[in-house]
Amino acid sequence: MNADERGSKIERLIGVHLCSSAAKYAVLLVTLGLHAETGANAWLLYQPLDGSALQHYRQALPAAMTALGNSAVIASAQGELIRGVRGMLGRTLRMEAHWPAEDSLVLGTLADLERDAPQLGLAGRLPTDAFWLKSVSAGGVKYTIVAGSNDRGVLYGAFALLRKIALGEPITNLDEKQAPYAPIRWINQWDNLDGSIERGYGGRSIFWENGHVRDDLSRVAEYGRLLASLGINGCSINNVNADVRLLTPEYAPQIARIADALRPWGVRVAISVDFGSPKTVGGLDTFDPLDRRVAAWWAARTSDLYRAVPDLGGFVLKADSEGRVGPSTYGRTPADAANVVARALKPHGGLLFYRGFVYDHHADWRNLKNDRARAAYDNFHPLDGRFDDNVVVQIKNGPIDFQVREPASPLFAGLTQTNQAIELQITQEYLGQARAMVFLVPMWKETLDFDMGGPVRELVSGRANHRPTGGFIGVANVGLDDNWLGNYLSQANLYGFGRLAWNPDLGARQIAGEWTRLTFGSDPKVVDTISAMQLQSWRVYEDYTGVLGLQGLTDITGNHYGVNVEASERNGWGQWHRADEHGVGMDRTVATGTGFIGQYPPAAAKLYESLETCPDDLLLFMHHVPYTHVLHDGKTVIQYIYDSHYEGAKAAENYVGQWKSLRGRVDEQRYAAVLAQLEYQAGQAPVWRDAVNNWFFRESGIADEKGRVGYHPGRVEAESMHLEGYTVVSVMPWESASGGEAVSCASGAAPCAASYRFEGAPGWYTLRVQYFDTNTGVARFRLRIQGQLVDEWAAADHVPTQKIDGSSSTRRTVAGIALRPGDEIRIEGIPDGGDTAAIDYIEIESNTN
Amino acid sequence: MNADERGSKIERLIGVHLCSSAAKYAVLLVTLGLHAETGANAWLLYQPLDGSALQHYRQALPAAMTALGNSAVIASAQGELIRGVRGMLGRTLRMEAHWPAEDSLVLGTLADLERDAPQLGLAGRLPTDAFWLKSVSAGGVKYTIVAGSNDRGVLYGAFALLRKIALGEPITNLDEKQAPYAPIRWINQWDNLDGSIERGYGGRSIFWENGHVRDDLSRVAEYGRLLASLGINGCSINNVNADVRLLTPEYAPQIARIADALRPWGVRVAISVDFGSPKTVGGLDTFDPLDRRVAAWWAARTSDLYRAVPDLGGFVLKADSEGRVGPSTYGRTPADAANVVARALKPHGGLLFYRGFVYDHHADWRNLKNDRARAAYDNFHPLDGRFDDNVVVQIKNGPIDFQVREPASPLFAGLTQTNQAIELQITQEYLGQARAMVFLVPMWKETLDFDMGGPVRELVSGRANHRPTGGFIGVANVGLDDNWLGNYLSQANLYGFGRLAWNPDLGARQIAGEWTRLTFGSDPKVVDTISAMQLQSWRVYEDYTGVLGLQGLTDITGNHYGVNVEASERNGWGQWHRADEHGVGMDRTVATGTGFIGQYPPAAAKLYESLETCPDDLLLFMHHVPYTHVLHDGKTVIQYIYDSHYEGAKAAENYVGQWKSLRGRVDEQRYAAVLAQLEYQAGQAPVWRDAVNNWFFRESGIADEKGRVGYHPGRVEAESMHLEGYTVVSVMPWESASGGEAVSCASGAAPCAASYRFEGAPGWYTLRVQYFDTNTGVARFRLRIQGQLVDEWAAADHVPTQKIDGSSSTRRTVAGIALRPGDEIRIEGIPDGGDTAAIDYIEIESNTN
Repeated sequence: MNADERGSKIERLIGVHLCSSAAKYAVLLVTLGLHAETGANAWLLYQPLDGSALQHYRQALPAAMTALGNSAVIASAQGELIRGVRGMLGRTLRMEAHWPAEDSLVLGTLADLERDAPQLGLAGRLPTDAFWLKSVSAGGVKYTIVAGSNDRGVLYGAFALLRKIALGEPITNLDEKQAPYAPIRWINQWDNLDGSIERGYGGRSIFWENGHVRDDLSRVAEYGRLLASLGINGCSINNVNADVRLLTPEYAPQIARIADALRPWGVRVAISVDFGSPKTVGGLDTFDPLDRRVAAWWAARTSDLYRAVPDLGGFVLKADSEGRVGPSTYGRTPADAANVVARALKPHGGLLFYRGFVYDHHADWRNLKNDRARAAYDNFHPLDGRFDDNVVVQIKNGPIDFQVREPASPLFAGLTQTNQAIELQITQEYLGQARAMVFLVPMWKETLDFDMGGPVRELVSGRANHRPTGGFIGVANVGLDDNWLGNYLSQANLYGFGRLAWNPDLGARQIAGEWTRLTFGSDPKVVDTISAMQLQSWRVYEDYTGVLGLQGLTDITGNHYGVNVEASERNGWGQWHRADEHGVGMDRTVATGTGFIGQYPPAAAKLYESLETCPDDLLLFMHHVPYTHVLHDGKTVIQYIYDSHYEGAKAAENYVGQWKSLRGRVDEQRYAAVLAQLEYQAGQAPVWRDAVNNWFFRESGIADEKGRVGYHPGRVEAESMHLEGYTVVSVMPWESASGGEAVSCASGAAPCAASYRFEGAPGWYTLRVQYFDTNTGVARFRLRIQGQLVDEWAAADHVPTQKIDGSSSTRRTVAGIALRPGDEIRIEGIPDGGDTAAIDYIEIESNTN
Repeated sequence: MNADERGSKIERLIGVHLCSSAAKYAVLLVTLGLHAETGANAWLLYQPLDGSALQHYRQALPAAMTALGNSAVIASAQGELIRGVRGMLGRTLRMEAHWPAEDSLVLGTLADLERDAPQLGLAGRLPTDAFWLKSVSAGGVKYTIVAGSNDRGVLYGAFALLRKIALGEPITNLDEKQAPYAPIRWINQWDNLDGSIERGYGGRSIFWENGHVRDDLSRVAEYGRLLASLGINGCSINNVNADVRLLTPEYAPQIARIADALRPWGVRVAISVDFGSPKTVGGLDTFDPLDRRVAAWWAARTSDLYRAVPDLGGFVLKADSEGRVGPSTYGRTPADAANVVARALKPHGGLLFYRGFVYDHHADWRNLKNDRARAAYDNFHPLDGRFDDNVVVQIKNGPIDFQVREPASPLFAGLTQTNQAIELQITQEYLGQARAMVFLVPMWKETLDFDMGGPVRELVSGRANHRPTGGFIGVANVGLDDNWLGNYLSQANLYGFGRLAWNPDLGARQIAGEWTRLTFGSDPKVVDTISAMQLQSWRVYEDYTGVLGLQGLTDITGNHYGVNVEASERNGWGQWHRADEHGVGMDRTVATGTGFIGQYPPAAAKLYESLETCPDDLLLFMHHVPYTHVLHDGKTVIQYIYDSHYEGAKAAENYVGQWKSLRGRVDEQRYAAVLAQLEYQAGQAPVWRDAVNNWFFRESGIADEKGRVGYHPGRVEAESMHLEGYTVVSVMPWESASGGEAVSCASGAAPCAASYRFEGAPGWYTLRVQYFDTNTGVARFRLRIQGQLVDEWAAADHVPTQKIDGSSSTRRTVAGIALRPGDEIRIEGIPDGGDTAAIDYIEIESNTN
C-alpha cells in the first residue's frame, strides 16, 4: 500500500465519506455533537469531553501524528486515532507523511522504530500482539509513542491510548507495556448460511444471507473494529453445526471477502467444518480419519482455501456430538479426527479447534450412575498427549452446557500435554436470551479463578503446562441489529469477554465500570447505578431461575427460555436435578454417586465430595439431599429456594426504579429500550418465582415459613372470573400458570371477555393483567371498568414459543384506576390467528398516592 | 348520539385504540412516560408531573366525571380531559353515565346545568363560546364545573382546565368566566387541490392530494384539536387563489368529509371561491354580480353545498387582486361582488370574507405619487356601509404585504359601518420561511394595540363600532410534517395567534412563557431561555433584514427568501424603498409625498407626518431622508443600518449558544432539529448583514464609522484562490456574494478544486467554508489540509432557489484544525446536476483553546 492508498484507506476508516443521504445525516449528527445512540458503536462512542478534561487532553495531546509502516492494520490505527480524538476533543490530528519536527504521536512496530528512529532510544522485545505506550523527548521535541511488537500491537496500542482518554486516565509521561495473556482470543459465531443464527438474539447474520456471503459486509468491518478494540484476533464465521457446502470451491472467494473485511482490524477468519465432508461433498466413500484418501482430501481442500485466504486462522470441528457425525463411526478417537484435519492445516499455520462438547444425549435417566457431566473428561482425558501441536481442544466453562451455575470443567486439569481453550458463551442462550440483564463477567471470573492445581486461567492459556498455544473463545452470535446483541446491556458481556481474554486478572467491578463509562459516559450516577445493576444481575437471575446448582430450570429440550422445572427429567439429555418428594440434587460424589467429583484434582475433589465443605451454590449439582438439609447459611434447602426466588424477583422488579433514576442522564433511545427490557424482565421474574416455588411446594409438601408461596393477595384467577367465550384450559407445565390454568379464546376472531365484580374499598388502584403472548398471531386486549375503556394493547411481542406457557406469560400494568365497590372489571380479548388472547390472572393493587 | 356511541367516540379521541403495530408502539411510549417528541401534539403534550405538583393536583382533582348533553363536541371535551389527566397525573377519570354521588368533574352547557342540576345553583348568561370554571359544593359533595354557553364553550373550558394544570395554576375554589374577544377566530389555509401549499413550509396539504380530499384525514382531526385548544372556531381549507373546481358538485361530499373531521372540535369549515365561477364552471356567459342569473347561480350552488355541509362557515373571496378576476370586469364594486355571494350564504347563516388585499401590481414606479400602500383604503373606504351584514372585509395587518415592519393598515379606521377582520400571517412567508426563528406575537401586538381612534383590536373585532361580527384570521398553512410548520419554534406563532384571537389583551411575554411551558416543560431555565430568545427574535430578524421601515430587503418578485436589496425597485409591484445615492425611503407624507399618511385618523396622521415624531422604526416607510439624517437615537440613518445589521447577525449567532445551554433539558429530537435550524440561521444572518451593508455602502459612499463594512479579517475570497476547474462567476445580485463573485464548477461531474497557501501562525483554527447550495442537485465538497481529508459534506439542503445567490449561500464550519505556515488549504467540489459546487469564500479563525 502506498501513502496515497493508505490515506484514502484512513479516510474510509474515519467515516468522513458520504455515499448516501443517510450517511450525510450521520455526519451531520456527529457535527452537531449529538448521539442518536443506536448502539452500533457500542463502547467506542468517543463522546465529546468538556470542561477541564477537554482542556487537559487538548494540551496533553500533540497535533501531529506519523506512522512507520504501511500496512492496512497500521492505517486502521491511524484512522481510529483521528476518529477518536475528533470525537472526544473536537480536533483533527495532522497526518504527517514525514518525520515531524514538532510534538507528535508516533506509531510503529518496535523493530521499525529502532531502525528508523534510533534517536528515540527505544529498544527491547515485546511479546506477540503486545504494545508499549511511551513518552519520549528527543531534540527538544516530545513524542508520544505507540509501539507494537507487530502491526496488531500498534493497533491495540492506539485503542488503549484512546481508552485512557475516554476513561480520564493520564496520557503524559507514559511508559506502559501490555501483552495479552494468551495467544488465542477468538470469537465463534453460530451463523447458518441461510442467514439465521443458532442461539442468536441480535438479528440476522452479518455474514450470510440466502446461502451466500452478504453483498454488503459493512457490518462485518464494524464488527472487526469492535473486536480489535478488545484485542480479539480471530473469528469463526459459521455455525459449529457446520454446513457441508462451506468446503465446496464456490465458497472460497466468498470467505475471502469476509477475511478482507476483517483483516485491517487484525482479525483472522476461521470456519467450522463438518467431519463427514470427505464423503458428503468430497465424493469419497468414507470419512475415516485414518484413511489415506481422507487425509489427502482434507489437505487438498485446505490448500485450496488457503490460496483464497492465505491468513485463514483454521477450522472449528464439532464431531460425535448432538447428531454430528464423527470418528466414532469408524471406531476412531477424537485425536485421530483432530489430527487428520490439523495436518492439513499445519503447512499453512492454521489451527484445528476440536470441541470437547461430546456427550451421549440418549443416556438412561433411570441409571443413577449415568452422568453427562463426566463426558468431556471421560472422552478426552485418556487422549491427552495424542493431539498434534496445532490442535486446540475447546472446552466449555462447565461440564454441562452454559447453565446459570456450574463448576469448572474438570477437563481443564485433565489435559496437560494438549492445547486447550475455554469456550465461554456471550450470547445468553440459557440466561434470558437478550430479554434479561445478566452480566456474565463475575460468573466467568469465578471459573477462571478456580484453583484446580493452578487457576483455570493458567490452564486454558497454556501457561501452566507451557503449551504452544491456548486461550479464550467467546460465542458471541452478534447480528444485524443496530446494537448487535438485541439489547444494549448485553454488550457488556462482549466487552467483558474481550477484556478478560486480554487480561483475566482484571476484576469484574473494574470491567463493569470501564464498560459503563465508555458506553454511557462518565456521569458518576450513571456509572455507579449501571455498574451496580450489572454486578448483581447474575446472582439475581440465578436467584429466580435455578439456585444451589440446580441449573436453570427452563425448557431444556425446547427453547431454553421459559420456566419448566421437569423438562430436565426423564429424558436422555442428562441435565437431571433429580428432584422428587424426598429431596433434590444429583449425587456426583465418588462415595455414593456418579463419581464425577473424582475427575477433579484431589483438593477440588475433596472440597466438593464433602457436604461439610461443598459450597451452597453448587450443593445440588454435587449432592442429593433432603429438602430439610440445612445449608451453611442456616436455612433449609426448601426455605432457601423459596426465599431466593422472592428475593430475586424483587431485585428484578427494583431494576426498573434503578434505571428510572437515570432518566435524562442516558440518551432517550437507549433509555427507552433498556427500560422496556427491564419492565419485561420485572414481569417475567414473578412467573419464574411462582412456578419454581409452587413446584417445589407441591413436590416437597413443606410450607413456606413466611407464608408467601401459594398465597397471592389481590390476585384473581381468570378461570374464576365470569367468562364470555373464554374457556378454561390446563397449562403445560402446570407450574407456568397461576393455579395451573388459564382462559383461552378459541372463537376464531370474535372477542371473548372475562369479568369480575370488585368489592374492595373505593380508591386508586394499579391493575396487572397477566396474559400469554404467543408467536402465532397478534391478539388484542381491552380493559374496561364499568364499561369504560381504560386501556388497550396488542400482544405483539416476540418470544420463542407458540404455546400458552412460561415463555409466553407476560403482563400489562395499568396504573391510576379508580375502583368503587360493585365495579365490573372486564378484560376483552380479541384472538388473532393462533394467538387465543389467553389470560392467567389479574392483580389489583391499592396505591392511594 | 347515544351513550354507547359517545363512549366509543371518546375512546377514539383518547387514542387508546390500536389499529397497527405503529399505534402499538405509540401507546407503549406513552405507557413508559417517554416522549419521542415529533411536535405533532405541539403545546398539548400533557407531560407527566412529578413531586409536589403531582400530589397537589391528584388531590385537587376528583376521580369521577359526568357530562350533560350528548354532542360530539362534549364528547371531545370528555376525551380530552381523560387524555390530559392521564398524561399529567397518570390517572384515568371515571366516566359516570349518571349523576355521581361523589366528588366529580361536571361538564355541560349552562342551560343544561340549570335545568338538570338546579341544586348547584348555577345561573346567569354567558356570551357565545364562553366558559365558566366553577367549584361548587352541594349535599356534601364537591363539584368542579366546566360550564359553557354552548357545547363549544364546554370544550374550551375543558382545555382551559387542563392548561391550568400544565401551567401549575390553582384549580380549587374556581370561579372563572372567560369569553372570547370576538366571534371570528379563524384560520385560512392556502392549500391547493394538488396537495401543494402556497407559502407553506410544513410539508404537503393535510386536506388535499392529487385534486381530491385525502383518504386519510387523521391529521385534519388532530389539527382541529389543536385549533380548538385555542378557541379557534373556523378554518378555510383551500387557497385564496381559488381553484374553480371546488364549486363543482363532485367536491361537496369531499368537503363534507373534512367538515366531519373538524366538527367534533367545534371548527367550522369554509372554502375559498373564485369570482369567475358562474362563467367558468357555471355555464353562464357572465359573472357580473348585478346579473340576475349570476345571483341565482350563486344561490343554487351555495344551497347544494349546504345540503352536504349544513354548518359550513362561508366563503373567502379574493377578487381583482394579483391576477384574480373580479367585479372590475363589469365596472362593479367590491361591494357588489361581496353582496351577491353573501346573499347566497345568508339563508344558511354563512359569512362572506372579502379580502381587502386589492392593489395594482403594474404601477408606474417612476411616478413618485404612486403608492401601493394606499390601495386598500382607496378601494374600500368609499364603499363603507355598502356591504351586507354577513360580509366581512378581511384586511392584512399592514398596508403592503406581511413585511417585517409595517404600520397598521389605515383601512381599519376607514370602515365604521362594515364588518372587518384582521388577517395575520402565521406562516413565515417574508420572515424566514421556517428556517429562521421569528416570534410574531410582539409584532401583532404592536398593530393590535395601535391607536387609530381606538386600538386596532377594538376596530377589527367590531367592538368599537358595534358591528354584528368581526375578529381575527390567521394564515397558518400547516402541512403534513410531524411538527406542522416545518420547525418547532414556529409553533409558537400558531399558539400566539390563537391566544390573541381569544384575548388580545394578553401580553407577548405571557404568551411566550405559556407556550414554552406547555411545549417544552416547566424547567425554569428552559422557559426563561426559550422565552427570551423568542421575544427578541422579531427585532433580531428585522435588524439584519430590513430596518427603519425599509421592509424586508428580499427578492420580492421571486422567492421572498434571500437578500436582494433592489428587487423592490423599478417594477410595478410597489414595494419601493427608493434608496439612491442621496437618500432612502418612501415619502408618504401629505405635504410632499403620496399622501398615504392622510388616510389615518388625525392623531396618527400627525404622528407619522412629522419627522420629529415619526418613530424611527417606521421612518423610511413614511419619509425619504438623506443617509446622514439623524435618528431619535442619535445615529445617522446609514450608521444605524450598519450597526443594526452587525447587531442582528451577532444576536442570531448567539442563539446557538443560548440553545446549547439547554442540552439535556430538551428532548433530543427537538433539541437536534432546533439546533440545526439555529446553526443555519446563524450562517444566513452574516450573508444578509454583508449584502445589505455593502449595498448601502456602495450606494451612499459613506464609510462605516466602526470600520467593519467591507473589511473581513480572515476571509479569503474563492476567486482569489488557486483554481483547478473552477471558474469565476459574477453573482446576481452582486451584494449576495462576498466581492460580488463566486467560483463555480461547470465541468459536468468532474471535481474542481480551489486552494490557498496558509501563511499565518501555527495553531488551532476553525475554518468556515461559505458555499452555495442550490436546488438543482446535490454537490459534494471535501476539505483537505496538506492533502489530508479533514471534512466532507453534501450540499443537500432544500432552499428555494436554483441560483447562486443569497438564498443558496450557506456555510460549513470545521473546527479543530491545526494549521502550519505553508499548509495548503484545499476545497474540492464535486458538482451534481445543475449544482455547480460554487464557493464564495473561506474564513480562517484562530481559536487556541
